[in-house]
Amino acid sequence: MPISQRAREIQPFHVMELLRRARELEAAGRDIIHMEVGEPDFPTPQPIAEAGMRFIATGHVQYTSTAGLPALREAIARFYHDRLGTRVEADRIIITPGASGALMLALAVSTNPGDEWLMADPSYPCNRHLVRTFEGRARMLPVNAEARFQPTPEQVDAAWNTHTRGLMVATPSNPTGTLLDAQELAALRACVTRRGGILIVDEIYQGLTYGVEASTVLSQMDDAFVVNSFSKYFGMTGWRLGWLVAPREYVREVEKLAQHFFISASTPAQHAALAAFAPATLEILEARRHEFAGRRAALLPALSKLGFVIATEPQGAFYIYADISKLSDDSEALARRLIEEAGVATTPGLDFGEHLPRRHLRLAYTTSTPRLLEAAERIADTLR
Amino acid sequence: MPISQRAREIQPFHVMELLRRARELEAAGRDIIHMEVGEPDFPTPQPIAEAGMRFIATGHVQYTSTAGLPALREAIARFYHDRLGTRVEADRIIITPGASGALMLALAVSTNPGDEWLMADPSYPCNRHLVRTFEGRARMLPVNAEARFQPTPEQVDAAWNTHTRGLMVATPSNPTGTLLDAQELAALRACVTRRGGILIVDEIYQGLTYGVEASTVLSQMDDAFVVNSFSKYFGMTGWRLGWLVAPREYVREVEKLAQHFFISASTPAQHAALAAFAPATLEILEARRHEFAGRRAALLPALSKLGFVIATEPQGAFYIYADISKLSDDSEALARRLIEEAGVATTPGLDFGEHLPRRHLRLAYTTSTPRLLEAAERIADTLR
Repeated sequence: MPISQRAREIQPFHVMELLRRARELEAAGRDIIHMEVGEPDFPTPQPIAEAGMRFIATGHVQYTSTAGLPALREAIARFYHDRLGTRVEADRIIITPGASGALMLALAVSTNPGDEWLMADPSYPCNRHLVRTFEGRARMLPVNAEARFQPTPEQVDAAWNTHTRGLMVATPSNPTGTLLDAQELAALRACVTRRGGILIVDEIYQGLTYGVEASTVLSQMDDAFVVNSFSKYFGMTGWRLGWLVAPREYVREVEKLAQHFFISASTPAQHAALAAFAPATLEILEARRHEFAGRRAALLPALSKLGFVIATEPQGAFYIYADISKLSDDSEALARRLIEEAGVATTPGLDFGEHLPRRHLRLAYTTSTPRLLEAAERIADTLR
Repeated sequence: MPISQRAREIQPFHVMELLRRARELEAAGRDIIHMEVGEPDFPTPQPIAEAGMRFIATGHVQYTSTAGLPALREAIARFYHDRLGTRVEADRIIITPGASGALMLALAVSTNPGDEWLMADPSYPCNRHLVRTFEGRARMLPVNAEARFQPTPEQVDAAWNTHTRGLMVATPSNPTGTLLDAQELAALRACVTRRGGILIVDEIYQGLTYGVEASTVLSQMDDAFVVNSFSKYFGMTGWRLGWLVAPREYVREVEKLAQHFFISASTPAQHAALAAFAPATLEILEARRHEFAGRRAALLPALSKLGFVIATEPQGAFYIYADISKLSDDSEALARRLIEEAGVATTPGLDFGEHLPRRHLRLAYTTSTPRLLEAAERIADTLR
């Protein structure tokens, strides 16, 4: 039967195979420490869960308008103002089924077949696969720990050609946890707008920064697409809720596509998220951020001691992208060994691009500090 | 700024403008009877809502695996067996964010740029817009009341060419409410498979049939894509949950795309839907089906008396696609007049295709019988 070229070319998440193995081992009674998961281990904050339940109890779980509940769009606009000190008009905010929906919209509204998008290698795998979905091409810019795994204006300039549609960046980045500061973003944007291109900024891990305050590219420009999510900082992964801030000229077009792509985002999730910005919720979220900071502070030196090289300390998200070349010449083989022998699940670089994937392993600190330290001990025993 | 050709060519739902007007009138104190809405007016059945709330109370609202909760996939398989007398393997069922997600997957996995999909005109607008999204082309087959608004094998044969990828049909159909019986489906399928094409069957309104039992194309073939939803029969619109049954050869490819398109469907919705097949829920749903049948029985003669021509009685969904040529030569003008003068909102044919759209109006019986009869009276006054 005919399978589209698109489907043939798009790769699965390779980590799924490791996950399957982890589950097999668990089913057989082994204790597995999960450091492969891109999902906070905390439950949905109580005020959010309660708001969701209160809404469902009304029974009236109908579609919302495509762009989302006006009250939620306004709450997000207020959050930008109150917490991030920037003014974003609520009518530029489109509520989506997770950041995935936001990414799809931003790419679908702007990408013609053959268009190229520049992005860091390594970066979040869906980005290049969604570009391919809409018949565009991802052009990967190899980035190293020395440049904090972020693309430079020089790289963007050098890679730009007549097919280039724009640049996608992430701050904090998955898998590397590194940030772009305001100057770097301004320089990248200057580079993109000089060419008449588009900038897409993934701020999915926005609230999760350590030793530096959360920020948004929207403070300095209103002509970028900004992708965000209730999944990570707000602890709402399974609810599937995110948002897109679109440049004004695109808003109507984005809404039109959203009508056909998903009608509207989950209504219970939207009502639950209305409680996401309440002071009681933010207090819980900030406590969690401090917990993540503590885990990070414990894990970084433990990994270094084991021979993992972390040349640039990640300042955000909950990932460490470690150079494993002192330990192995193949991160996939190492990941397999760690799961089989140490009972520790990690993600090899393979999923994130083609630039030195065998030399890197992503470790997520989405489990408690004692478990992380236990993982480090078990890894030490295995590598000994 | 650059907007993709895709976004330029895809049409919005035209009915949105009428909806905006309806809301304006309501805000100004006018009473509007809503017959434009493709959404049941019933609340989410209590057992489903309770299952959702119970799950949220656990706090552990994490991602599910991409294909969905195994228990839900198995519950759907059991439903096919127990209610529809057919065997569908649970591992061919992929849980999606609404039927929209299922449609996107079926098209993305099978459509190359330039591929043509045949479909009825009129039909559900998203179908042709999603085909365009993936750089395919919709080839509309004009269908009339005399052929119960469904395409014939002769039409499919005549339209088929080297670019044709397959045929999309819907039973019951939106906007016409008409069904395809087993013989008709078999004939269409024979026609498609003879050409090596693909059949996509939209069964979104499956449970909502009147005077005829619900059925599935899966009883006679396992090589069609089948799109279904918890929105309509199960009363879960705002939860955004549907499913795709894929031919076995496509399952892995579909799962792979789903990972990138949406990671997983809403977890609260999936847990809520586990209660959708419980006897207590099915009792509520069947009572609602009878209520819909009563509304239909009241509305059809009332509309006929007003001069709406319904040459083929719809047997499913909750729509009547009426010929208004005795009343007006422009359904859009009529719809505007009905909303302004009668306070009755309807959907003109324009959204559903290019075949005689000005001659047809879609009327949804998603409001109570007394309100429907009041609408008929108000329309009579307006047209008098």
